[in-house]
Amino acid sequence: MEITFELGYALDTFYFLICGALVMWMAAGFAMLEAGLVRAKNTTEILTKNIALYAIACTMYMICGYSIMYGGGDFTLFLDGIVADGATGVAEEPATYAPSADFFFQVVFVATAMSIVSGAVAERMKLWAFLLFAVVMTGFIYPMEGAWTWGGEAVFGMYTLGDLGFSDFAGSGIVHMAGAAAALAGVLVLGPRKGKYTADGKVIAIPGANLPLATLGTFILWMGWFGFNGGSVLATATVESANAVAVVFMNTNAAAAGGCIAALVLARVMFGKADLTMALNGALAGLVAITAEPSYPTPLTATLFGALGGVLVVFSIVALDKLKIDDPVGAISVHGTVGLLGLILVPFTNDGSSLSGQLIGALTIFGWVFVVSLVVWLAIKAIIGVRVSEEEEFDGVDISECGLEAYPDFTGGRS
Amino acid sequence: MEITFELGYALDTFYFLICGALVMWMAAGFAMLEAGLVRAKNTTEILTKNIALYAIACTMYMICGYSIMYGGGDFTLFLDGIVADGATGVAEEPATYAPSADFFFQVVFVATAMSIVSGAVAERMKLWAFLLFAVVMTGFIYPMEGAWTWGGEAVFGMYTLGDLGFSDFAGSGIVHMAGAAAALAGVLVLGPRKGKYTADGKVIAIPGANLPLATLGTFILWMGWFGFNGGSVLATATVESANAVAVVFMNTNAAAAGGCIAALVLARVMFGKADLTMALNGALAGLVAITAEPSYPTPLTATLFGALGGVLVVFSIVALDKLKIDDPVGAISVHGTVGLLGLILVPFTNDGSSLSGQLIGALTIFGWVFVVSLVVWLAIKAIIGVRVSEEEEFDGVDISECGLEAYPDFTGGRS
Amino acid sequence: MEITFELGYALDTFYFLICGALVMWMAAGFAMLEAGLVRAKNTTEILTKNIALYAIACTMYMICGYSIMYGGGDFTLFLDGIVADGATGVAEEPATYAPSADFFFQVVFVATAMSIVSGAVAERMKLWAFLLFAVVMTGFIYPMEGAWTWGGEAVFGMYTLGDLGFSDFAGSGIVHMAGAAAALAGVLVLGPRKGKYTADGKVIAIPGANLPLATLGTFILWMGWFGFNGGSVLATATVESANAVAVVFMNTNAAAAGGCIAALVLARVMFGKADLTMALNGALAGLVAITAEPSYPTPLTATLFGALGGVLVVFSIVALDKLKIDDPVGAISVHGTVGLLGLILVPFTNDGSSLSGQLIGALTIFGWVFVVSLVVWLAIKAIIGVRVSEEEEFDGVDISECGLEAYPDFTGGRS
Repeated sequence: MEITFELGYALDTFYFLICGALVMWMAAGFAMLEAGLVRAKNTTEILTKNIALYAIACTMYMICGYSIMYGGGDFTLFLDGIVADGATGVAEEPATYAPSADFFFQVVFVATAMSIVSGAVAERMKLWAFLLFAVVMTGFIYPMEGAWTWGGEAVFGMYTLGDLGFSDFAGSGIVHMAGAAAALAGVLVLGPRKGKYTADGKVIAIPGANLPLATLGTFILWMGWFGFNGGSVLATATVESANAVAVVFMNTNAAAAGGCIAALVLARVMFGKADLTMALNGALAGLVAITAEPSYPTPLTATLFGALGGVLVVFSIVALDKLKIDDPVGAISVHGTVGLLGLILVPFTNDGSSLSGQLIGALTIFGWVFVVSLVVWLAIKAIIGVRVSEEEEFDGVDISECGLEAYPDFTGGRS
Repeated sequence: MEITFELGYALDTFYFLICGALVMWMAAGFAMLEAGLVRAKNTTEILTKNIALYAIACTMYMICGYSIMYGGGDFTLFLDGIVADGATGVAEEPATYAPSADFFFQVVFVATAMSIVSGAVAERMKLWAFLLFAVVMTGFIYPMEGAWTWGGEAVFGMYTLGDLGFSDFAGSGIVHMAGAAAALAGVLVLGPRKGKYTADGKVIAIPGANLPLATLGTFILWMGWFGFNGGSVLATATVESANAVAVVFMNTNAAAAGGCIAALVLARVMFGKADLTMALNGALAGLVAITAEPSYPTPLTATLFGALGGVLVVFSIVALDKLKIDDPVGAISVHGTVGLLGLILVPFTNDGSSLSGQLIGALTIFGWVFVVSLVVWLAIKAIIGVRVSEEEEFDGVDISECGLEAYPDFTGGRS
Repeated sequence: MEITFELGYALDTFYFLICGALVMWMAAGFAMLEAGLVRAKNTTEILTKNIALYAIACTMYMICGYSIMYGGGDFTLFLDGIVADGATGVAEEPATYAPSADFFFQVVFVATAMSIVSGAVAERMKLWAFLLFAVVMTGFIYPMEGAWTWGGEAVFGMYTLGDLGFSDFAGSGIVHMAGAAAALAGVLVLGPRKGKYTADGKVIAIPGANLPLATLGTFILWMGWFGFNGGSVLATATVESANAVAVVFMNTNAAAAGGCIAALVLARVMFGKADLTMALNGALAGLVAITAEPSYPTPLTATLFGALGGVLVVFSIVALDKLKIDDPVGAISVHGTVGLLGLILVPFTNDGSSLSGQLIGALTIFGWVFVVSLVVWLAIKAIIGVRVSEEEEFDGVDISECGLEAYPDFTGGRS
C-alpha cells in the first residue's frame, strides 16, 4: 500500500476512536446529570441503571444490533466478518479506516439513545424491568430504525428515507428523538411519581439532590458531543473533511452556548430567578438542535438554532407537566421535542434535504420506536411489572432495588 | 493539492480540535473547583455563573472578540471572512489548518480567563452583575490585550510588546494574570464576605462544602491544561513541532507535580497539617507558572518552576488575607501572583525574551485589564449594584438568585 | 527527512500524548472511586493521598524510575539523554515518535500502579507513611519489575521473562497486580479497620459515603483505559497498527461491559439486590482481565473474558473478607486477583505466550513487589509508624491528618 494511504487510514481511524471515546464519556454525563436531578433516596438505583444500560447496549449491539443496522439483514456479519478483518489487520477495500473503529464509534451511539430513557422513568421504575427493556431497545428497536436511516435500507421495503430528502447528520432524530420516544412510551405506561401532581391540578416541584453533579453531567455531555457530532463527518484526513470536522466542533459549541443563554434568560423572565436546571437543559437542547445539521450553518446561525432549542425546551418542560407526563430530568423535552426541532431546521441550511423528507423521517422514527416500545413496556408490565410498590417509592428505590444508600453519611438513613 | 499537504493540514486541524476540547473541559474544572470551595448555600449560584459565563464567552468572542484580537481592527472579519472560508471547505493560502479550528481553540481560551473571575467574587456578588461583566470582559477587555500580545498589534499604536522581548507561550499573563486582574478589581469593589475578617484583625476560615468536587476540578484542570499548553505550539505535523508538543505535555505535567508537592510540604510545615486545598492550589500554581514557557525547560527545571509556584501561592494566599482581600478560592493568588512569576521565569530558559520585556508586558496587561475592569465594575455598581443584601448573603445566594438549593436533601433547607 | 516519515512521526507522537492524557485522567478516576467508597470522615485524606501520590510518582519516575526501567542501569539516561534530545527537537534514529511522548506515556503508568495502593489502605493509615512508601514504590519497586518485563532485562541476571513466553500487553500483571501486591503487603502490616470484623467472625459492611463519586470514578477509569490499553500498541501510523489500536479500543470496552453485567447479575443471585459497588468493581475487573491481551480476542471473547473477571472479583472480595484482609474499596481483588486471571488468559488467544511463562512472570512480579513492599512497610512502621491512633481512626483521619473536613456543611462537624 501507498504510505500516504496508510497515513490517511491511520489518521481517520484514530479520529474515530477518539471521537468514540468522547461519546462513551457521554454515558458518564447522563449518569451524573440524572443522579444530580433525582432525590437522594433514588440515586444508587439511577447510577446502577446508567452503568448497566451502557454495558448492555455495548453487548447487545455487538451480538445483533450492528448486524441489523448495517448488515443488510445478515445477522452474522459482525462476528464472522467485519471485526475478524479488523482483528487480523487486513483492511477491506475500499475501507479507509479500521472496521473495528467504525464498530466502536457506532456502539457508543446506541448507548446514548438508551441513556435518554433512564432519566425520564427515574424514581419509580423497577430496575430489572428497565434493564430488560434496554436489551430490546439496544439489540432491536434502535438498530431497526438505524438501518432505515444511516443504514440506507428501505422502511419495511416500502420507501427509502434518503430518497425522500431526509437528512440527520449526527442523530437529532435517529438517536435523540428515538430515545425520547422510547422514554415517552415508558412514562405513559408507568405514570407519574406519587405527589408530583395534586388532585386539583397543581404541579409540585421535586428538586434534585445534587446540582453540582447535574452541572458536571451537562459539561461532560457538552464535551462528549464534540465526538458525537465531530465524528459523524466520518473522515478527517483531507482538507475538505478536516474543515468540515472543524466547523462541526465550532458550531456544536456555539449552539450549546446559545441554548444555555436563551433558556437562562427565558427562565428569568418567566419564573423570576436564574434557574440553573433550565440553563443546563437549555445547553443540552442547543446541542440536540444542532445535531441534525452542524456542518452547514455559520456559527451565528448555529448559536441562534441553539437558542431556539433553549427556548423550546423551557416551554416543552412546562407543557409536559400540564399534561401530567412526569419526566424527572426533562429528557423527553430535551431530546424529543428539541430533536424534532433539529430535524425541521435542517432544510434551512442544507439544500440536500427537504421539509417533507424531514417530517416523514421524523414520523417513521417516532412511530416505530414509540409503538414498539409501548408494546415492549406493556409486555414487561404484564410479565414482571414495571413499577415499584408505593411503599418502596416512598422509601426510595435505592433500598428496595439496590440495598445501598447513595449518601448514607449525609441523610441519616432516610432522605 | 498534494496529499502530504492534506494529511498535515488534517493532522494539525485534528490536534487543534482535540486540544480545544480539552480546554473547553477546563470550564467544567473551574465549575467543580469553585463549587467545592464555597459553602453549600452558595453552590447553585456559582454553578450557574460558571456555565453561563462559558456560554457568554463563546458568544461574545464570536460576535466581536475574535475580530478585535486577530482582525487588525476589522470587526467583520469573523462573520464574513475566516469562518465562511472554513464552512465552505476552502483553506486560505497559506493556512495549514482549518480556520474554524483556530477559532475554536481561541474561543475556549477567553472562557478560561473569565472562569478565573467567578471564584474570586463568589458568595456575595449579584449573578446578573457578574454576567454583565462577563459580556464586557470576553467581548472587549480580553480581546484588546490579546490583540497587543498574540495578535501582534502595537499597544495604543505606541509600542509593540514582541519587539521589546515579551514572550508568553500559552498565557500565564495574557490569560491567567488577566483573569486575576479583573477578579482583583471586582473584589476591591465588592469587599470581603461578612464574617471573613473580624474587627480585631483575625481571619476566619470559611471551609468549602465539598472537597471531592474541588479535587475533581483540579484534576480536570490538570488534564485540560495539556490542551491549553500543548495546543499553543500551534502545529504538530512535523518532527520539530511534534517534539515541541511532547515536551510541553511532559513539562506541564512535571510543573503541576512540583507545585502540588511543594505546597503540600510547605503547608505541613507552616500549619502542621496536610492541607488539601493548598495541595490543589499548589498543583494549579505549578501549571500557571509553567504556562508562559513550557517548551524550553528540562522536566527537572519544569518541576522546580512548578514548585516555586507552589511555594509562592501559599504565601500569596496568606498575604491577601492579611490585606483583607477576600478571594474564597484563591484565584487571584493562583492565576495572578503566580501568573506574574510565570512571566518572570521565561527569560531563564528562553533566550528570545528579556526580563524588561516581560515586566513591560505584565504591566501592560495588568494595567489595562485592572483599570478597565475597575471602571466597568464601578459602572455596574452604579447601575444595578454588584452586591446582594446582607440578609441574602446570610441566607445564601442560591435562594435569592437562583431559587434552587444545590443540596436540598442534605442541608435540611438551610446550610 | 521524508515528509511521510515526519507525518507518521507526528501522528504517533500525538497518539501517545492523547493516550497518556487519558491515562493521567485515570488518577482522577481512582481519586473519585476511593473518595466515594470511604466514609465521609476519611474523604479529605484519601483525596490528599491521591493527588499527592500522582505528583510523587511523576517526580520520582523522572528522577530515577524511568532510567531504572528503560536505561539498562544507566541512571543518568533520562536527564542527560532522551529528554534533552526531545527538547532540542532532534529525533534519534530510529525513533518514530518523540522521546518525551514516550516518557509522558510511561510516567502516567507508574501513577496508576500507585493509585491502586491508596484505596486498600484507606481509613486507617498515616498520610505521610503512605507518601513515603509512594516514593519508594514509584522510584524503585515498580521500575525494577518494569525493567524485567517491558524493559527486557534479565531478572537479577538469571532469566529473561520474554524468552520464557511471558506476555503482558498493557499491564494486567506489570501494573495492576503489582499495585495490588504492594497494597496487600500494606494491608497485612496495617491490619483491618476497627469494627470491620467482630470477635465472633462476622463481617460488618461499612458503606461508602458518596456512590455518585464512586460511579464517576469508574466511568473515568473506563474512559482512561482506552488510553492505557490503546496506547500500549505503541504505534498507530500504519494500517496494521491502526487496526490493532482499533481492536484494542473495541475489546477494552467489550470486556468492561461483560464484567459489569456478570458482576451485577451474580451479586443479584448471591445477595438478592442489584449491588452497585459490585457492578462498578465488575466493570473494573473486566478491564483488568483484558489488559494483558486486548488485541487478539474477538469482541465476543473479550466480553466473556471480562465477564470471567466480573465473576471472579465478587468471589475474591467475599474471600478476602473471610480471611480478614480488609480492603475498603476492593482494590486487591480487582487489580490483584483479576490481574492474575488476565495473565493466565493470554495464552488462550496469543500463541506467542505460554502458560508457564505467564505463571513464572506472575510469580516474579508478585514475589518481588510483595516482598520488597513488606520490607519497606515494616521499615516505615518501625521509624514513623503506619497506623493512626484508635481515637484518630474513630474521629476520622480528615481532622487528624489534614485538619479539614470534606463535607462540613452536611455532616455537622462529625460524620
